[in-house]
Amino acid sequence: MKKIEGGLETVKGYSFSSLECGIRYENRLDYTIISADNLCNAAGVFTTNKIYAAPVKICRERINNSIKAIIINSTNANACTGSNGYENAAAITRDISAKLNVKPENILMASTGIIGRQLPVEKMIKSHSRLIKDLSSANGDSVARAIMTTDTVPKYCAVRFTCAEKEYTMAGVAKGSGMIAPDMATLLSFIITDAPVSKEDLDKIFKEKIQTTYNSITIDGDTSTNDTAIILSPISNEPLKNDSDMEIFSQALKFLLSDLAEKLMFDGEGVSKVVKINVSSARNQEDADLIARSISKSLLVKTAIFGNDPNWGRIACAAGYSGAEIEEDLLSIMIEDKALFKKGKTLEVNYTDLEEILKRNSYSINIDIGLGSGYSTILTSDLSYEYVKINAEYST
Amino acid sequence: MKKIEGGLETVKGYSFSSLECGIRYENRLDYTIISADNLCNAAGVFTTNKIYAAPVKICRERINNSIKAIIINSTNANACTGSNGYENAAAITRDISAKLNVKPENILMASTGIIGRQLPVEKMIKSHSRLIKDLSSANGDSVARAIMTTDTVPKYCAVRFTCAEKEYTMAGVAKGSGMIAPDMATLLSFIITDAPVSKEDLDKIFKEKIQTTYNSITIDGDTSTNDTAIILSPISNEPLKNDSDMEIFSQALKFLLSDLAEKLMFDGEGVSKVVKINVSSARNQEDADLIARSISKSLLVKTAIFGNDPNWGRIACAAGYSGAEIEEDLLSIMIEDKALFKKGKTLEVNYTDLEEILKRNSYSINIDIGLGSGYSTILTSDLSYEYVKINAEYST
Repeated sequence: MKKIEGGLETVKGYSFSSLECGIRYENRLDYTIISADNLCNAAGVFTTNKIYAAPVKICRERINNSIKAIIINSTNANACTGSNGYENAAAITRDISAKLNVKPENILMASTGIIGRQLPVEKMIKSHSRLIKDLSSANGDSVARAIMTTDTVPKYCAVRFTCAEKEYTMAGVAKGSGMIAPDMATLLSFIITDAPVSKEDLDKIFKEKIQTTYNSITIDGDTSTNDTAIILSPISNEPLKNDSDMEIFSQALKFLLSDLAEKLMFDGEGVSKVVKINVSSARNQEDADLIARSISKSLLVKTAIFGNDPNWGRIACAAGYSGAEIEEDLLSIMIEDKALFKKGKTLEVNYTDLEEILKRNSYSINIDIGLGSGYSTILTSDLSYEYVKINAEYST
Repeated sequence: MKKIEGGLETVKGYSFSSLECGIRYENRLDYTIISADNLCNAAGVFTTNKIYAAPVKICRERINNSIKAIIINSTNANACTGSNGYENAAAITRDISAKLNVKPENILMASTGIIGRQLPVEKMIKSHSRLIKDLSSANGDSVARAIMTTDTVPKYCAVRFTCAEKEYTMAGVAKGSGMIAPDMATLLSFIITDAPVSKEDLDKIFKEKIQTTYNSITIDGDTSTNDTAIILSPISNEPLKNDSDMEIFSQALKFLLSDLAEKLMFDGEGVSKVVKINVSSARNQEDADLIARSISKSLLVKTAIFGNDPNWGRIACAAGYSGAEIEEDLLSIMIEDKALFKKGKTLEVNYTDLEEILKRNSYSINIDIGLGSGYSTILTSDLSYEYVKINAEYST
């Protein structure tokens, strides 16, 4: 497997198109389509929020169908819009399906943006002729740009791999920025591949790989109403099946999602540092997750990271209130390989060495619980002035 | 019952003393004592954090004893200091007890400040003669000042009430600032009264009133290693007992704790606004608490409050990921009496009216879940540039 240049356009069998529909603002790419030449198997992971957007409802209903295309709009989330919002999303996909000569249930939709406003349905439907006329296999980069909201850069990645002596490609786009959290938060991501995989395998592998990538990053701990990650793979009579091929496919997917997850973190709102929280030797996996999440969400830890402050007391404190089993006498805390607190004892540290690490834009904090074999890793970010600025000024 | 001027010094039967011990910094009031003329009943509520400081361990062991005095130091939390830290706290209370002619188990201790450093035991013990020599019933205000860390103002309150035709006084001090959260966070608070109440009643009433006051405020969601709230009441052969007296005592305590809780919020790190989150008609009480806490901790909600932004979508979103039962079609959100979202429908609002409310330094957000009769209220704050600044620069 190798990473290759470019994004969605590197994958055979798909075409793309994007336009400035004027959904909320003029002169802004806000509407896009990913269309497969032939019907695909799809797998999806969606927000766990009990308040979820109309397009998420549409996707949940249709994800087990054969899928022809995904339409995505930015600037309006179509969330908290009631049955009216659902009808709008249905009407929009109905119109696209007719123009693509498939059924409405072959179309998926995703939205991101402001909550509580109805989509401008007529305007969007009116744009469909041009959206479809412009479809081209070369337009992949426009998708990454059209789904952005407060993202500052388009995020895409592509990999090439060989299964059963045939070369395949997989590529993906993602948008995130604020509201990134375990269990996803406003994260839209669309992955396409020309490698044929059965619906069953696609479901299993996609869910598994999302868990350690998109579900293991946090910026502000908020989980959004619109999180959607979808993968498409062509339907085939002879899908890749054997274990070694599935392993190669899984690894390619994991690489792709990890790469996009890291890009999401570095483009997080007001993020200047990305720090990996590694929790080891927790009583069990569940406790390790609790501790890693508690530390990664602590405002005091995040502001200390921003301030280059090796304040391990705040880390111990956040571990202590995580709800997991913790014993102070067994707890150790390291920044990279520098131990600050070891089995309940404060160590003397060389602050000059530490400072060199703390000033990096990326490092790891390693917490050893000393109670078992539970392990968990989460990427977190600092909390900066910039975060407050962006989110105080993003006006409704 | 009426509020009166002043703080601890208004209560008969106690004396106080504070000094600059040089525990972490020179020329700073950092060590204080509250001493009762006669032995008292005590009740206490302590941090729920599994990593808790040595003085909290001391208090947990001794809270059911007769109590003569509480000593409190700021600038060093004596947390994550292991058995050494515990021995230090024990030695310090042993020395004080000898000088006050009581047993060590009659002394309580509380600490706040940096985590992971041992207390300067010798220096502290050396200061005890002067600490005790200076004891005076007039020194109450010095206690409120000596327990401050990043607090900007001393926080105290006193009330007078009549039970069984006798006049009693109750007064309290508190320190908080950052790390205020439900389940207490770095909050030290000491309440004294001359009203004699049995140990059993004191325990019951104190825990009950803490729940709706100190345990219902949040600034950054972090729960500290040192939270301690203690009340002292003189031991008597004829304690106040009958229901109406207990009701008057309870109301006085509730008023006092509410007043101090509000002062803690307004002096929270970087706080420019205090907002009351009222959740009503949740499926049950537990769900109401989950929703109120989720909204009050959401960084996106807190930055929106800072930015005077009526972004109810973020409120709906935080309610949705709280874990509680929510149905979009039944949900309503109001800022004061202005409805923004009603039973699943977005309402047109007059932004000029709203703006007037949002610019206040205090207002309420009212969320109606429409599912049952669960009710919960939490005070939260905005998240400002100032919060980030204080916490990034508070260096270890």
